Amino acid sequence: MPILVMKFGGTSVASLERIRHAAGLVSREVENGHEVIVIVSAMSGKTNELVGWVEETSRFYDAREYDAVVSSGEQVTAGLMALTLQEMEIPARSWAGWQVPVQTDSAHAAARIEDIETGNITAKFAEGMKVAVVAGFQGISPEGRVTTLGRGGSDTTAVAFAAAFGAERCDIYTDVDGVYTTDPRITSKARKLDRIAFEEMLELASLGARVLQTRSVELAMRYNVRLRVLSTFGSNDDNAGTLVCAEEDIMEKNVVAGVAFSRDEAEMTLLSVADRPGIAAAIFGPLATAGVNVDMIVQNISEDGRTDMTFSLPVNQVARARQAMEAVKASGEVNYGRLVTDEDVAKVSVVGIGMRSHAGVASRMFAALRDESINIKVISTSEIKISVLIDRKYLELAVQALHEAFELSDAA
Amino acid sequence: MPILVMKFGGTSVASLERIRHAAGLVSREVENGHEVIVIVSAMSGKTNELVGWVEETSRFYDAREYDAVVSSGEQVTAGLMALTLQEMEIPARSWAGWQVPVQTDSAHAAARIEDIETGNITAKFAEGMKVAVVAGFQGISPEGRVTTLGRGGSDTTAVAFAAAFGAERCDIYTDVDGVYTTDPRITSKARKLDRIAFEEMLELASLGARVLQTRSVELAMRYNVRLRVLSTFGSNDDNAGTLVCAEEDIMEKNVVAGVAFSRDEAEMTLLSVADRPGIAAAIFGPLATAGVNVDMIVQNISEDGRTDMTFSLPVNQVARARQAMEAVKASGEVNYGRLVTDEDVAKVSVVGIGMRSHAGVASRMFAALRDESINIKVISTSEIKISVLIDRKYLELAVQALHEAFELSDAA
Repeated sequence: MPILVMKFGGTSVASLERIRHAAGLVSREVENGHEVIVIVSAMSGKTNELVGWVEETSRFYDAREYDAVVSSGEQVTAGLMALTLQEMEIPARSWAGWQVPVQTDSAHAAARIEDIETGNITAKFAEGMKVAVVAGFQGISPEGRVTTLGRGGSDTTAVAFAAAFGAERCDIYTDVDGVYTTDPRITSKARKLDRIAFEEMLELASLGARVLQTRSVELAMRYNVRLRVLSTFGSNDDNAGTLVCAEEDIMEKNVVAGVAFSRDEAEMTLLSVADRPGIAAAIFGPLATAGVNVDMIVQNISEDGRTDMTFSLPVNQVARARQAMEAVKASGEVNYGRLVTDEDVAKVSVVGIGMRSHAGVASRMFAALRDESINIKVISTSEIKISVLIDRKYLELAVQALHEAFELSDAA
Repeated sequence: MPILVMKFGGTSVASLERIRHAAGLVSREVENGHEVIVIVSAMSGKTNELVGWVEETSRFYDAREYDAVVSSGEQVTAGLMALTLQEMEIPARSWAGWQVPVQTDSAHAAARIEDIETGNITAKFAEGMKVAVVAGFQGISPEGRVTTLGRGGSDTTAVAFAAAFGAERCDIYTDVDGVYTTDPRITSKARKLDRIAFEEMLELASLGARVLQTRSVELAMRYNVRLRVLSTFGSNDDNAGTLVCAEEDIMEKNVVAGVAFSRDEAEMTLLSVADRPGIAAAIFGPLATAGVNVDMIVQNISEDGRTDMTFSLPVNQVARARQAMEAVKASGEVNYGRLVTDEDVAKVSVVGIGMRSHAGVASRMFAALRDESINIKVISTSEIKISVLIDRKYLELAVQALHEAFELSDAA
């Protein structure tokens, strides 16, 4: 019998009524002839409550005890979901991570799954069980202690189960009905994508379209797990969601799949840096140590042995970055003239695997921005993405212009 | 190093502040040179919340899923207690029941402990750990599923650990400061007992002095675990509580240790029952089947082949009992004249191991009641207990008179 993995996030299991609704979706898949593995999060709010207690108890807490406390939320939902399914006369039972077991490393609070033992659950399917409900976000360390996987861990659990059991598909039920060409709050012309390639999804996820956790997409790509994002609350008829899959499974590849953006960026420039081998390391090493997430980096060509170095970073890390730069200047490690900061910038990116084979995407992007008189401050590119830094006040305008320029509102 | 078991109930760990207070008590025992095993309940209210969710989800629920859900409360407290102790620089860690493991049978929601593996915790003590915090009320079945022990299970867990580890003592921290000669709400002359024998405690527990769960006292008696009941909130100086121990450990045995009572009793009499061999079984079999907890039973001597049969029961089971008796009459199995019910009675008992060697306790009890003109309706006796049924309105008067008659307010 084909196996399907279905994952329900915190808002989808926030109350007994919602758990019943989710169980109804599971029941439909059982009727369609699937054996189902359901991965559940804690009821929304519960994990935050537990984390709050731990943090109030101890500022530098033992992550092993943190995990023992925080993992309990998913166990409750798993039991309640199994009971709800049984009430619908569907043979079901719950598993905590340690019962499966989900073997992880010992990096408590941010553990990585190393192996999922399929024997116990497979044996129960063979005995007639139809649904295995598994507490997401957790596993067991080689020392026999409960571990958690960190934020977004339930998505990762779901994909790992789909890979381990060779599932037909991994359905991630959430509060949005799929992946869009851009944020519908910016333009009503944003269109839901039927399919998107793993690589595109990764770029979109890390660029701010918070639908799927990056780690789970990476894992799905590595094991070629077909991943579907869809709404828990959609109507039955029109709820196909978005399928995240391998490039080969997409017949008509988009040149550009979507327009992503990140609103709260800042730009820092070190003017007149004494250029020498190792200068980049001397600047970005201390920034990394200070916990600054540098994103785009641009270095102008050198004139008279001096250059300008520009980089972007989240706006709330500016103070930290400035401190680090003043320290390296004071210590004499880096010699620069002035430090210029612009805290009112945003990043806009176009993403698409079609770029690999289609020339002219960059020039089309730049032309669209020029037509709206939007000045580009910094440019960076990768194989399937072009990002620009612009004044924040133009963000919405830029997203709309690019969405239009790449004809993303037309049906594929 | 001597091992001490300390158990904290739900009200003792109801908030982070109370957990800190309890951790302070643990810390004092560590300073006194003990290795400590702490058994914790769920934060008060949590278990009821979880049980409520299960019952709302499913009327005839799978007890295995009930256990998976309900056991989570103790795990949270165990983790928080371990963190709090670490914060006080005491080496501590938490264990869920399955991690110890606490082996139980498969009677989910009412499991019995079969074995406690001491190896893991002992090894950690050898490595320098000072406190093992164990989630009470739970274990693991032979099938590898989480079990719970039923109401009062945390007391039982504590005593079982004390037995398994050969602990010096098992301290049950609760919201009362010990076991009293009678309920202080009835007479201000009630006195806290320094020591009480297991057998006496068992009679008092089952008679309504709700300090310790009966099952845990039975277990302590079987393994000769010295059990101390004391207050979590008492002052340091005057908080010795009450030691529940073997008869041999009590130098000055009380003739009577205490006066127990049960307020909401009823008395039923079947008048003119046709007496024949097996008549008692014909009456009390159907009552048991109907879920009626019959307590005292009195059968008058037979005259002309007919007798009267009187028994006591909780007042809220009268309707059920009447229905059962009318059914056996209608079926012709039991032939009786009239059914008389008195729903306004109470039971008062005096308990003491000294009765075994002291004659005259019964007559002293009856004289005390006679002096207050209290009529005795039914009498029953065991080796260390005499119980009488009286009109409920005389309950307080009877308790005070007996407390006085046996000189219980004088220091031992």
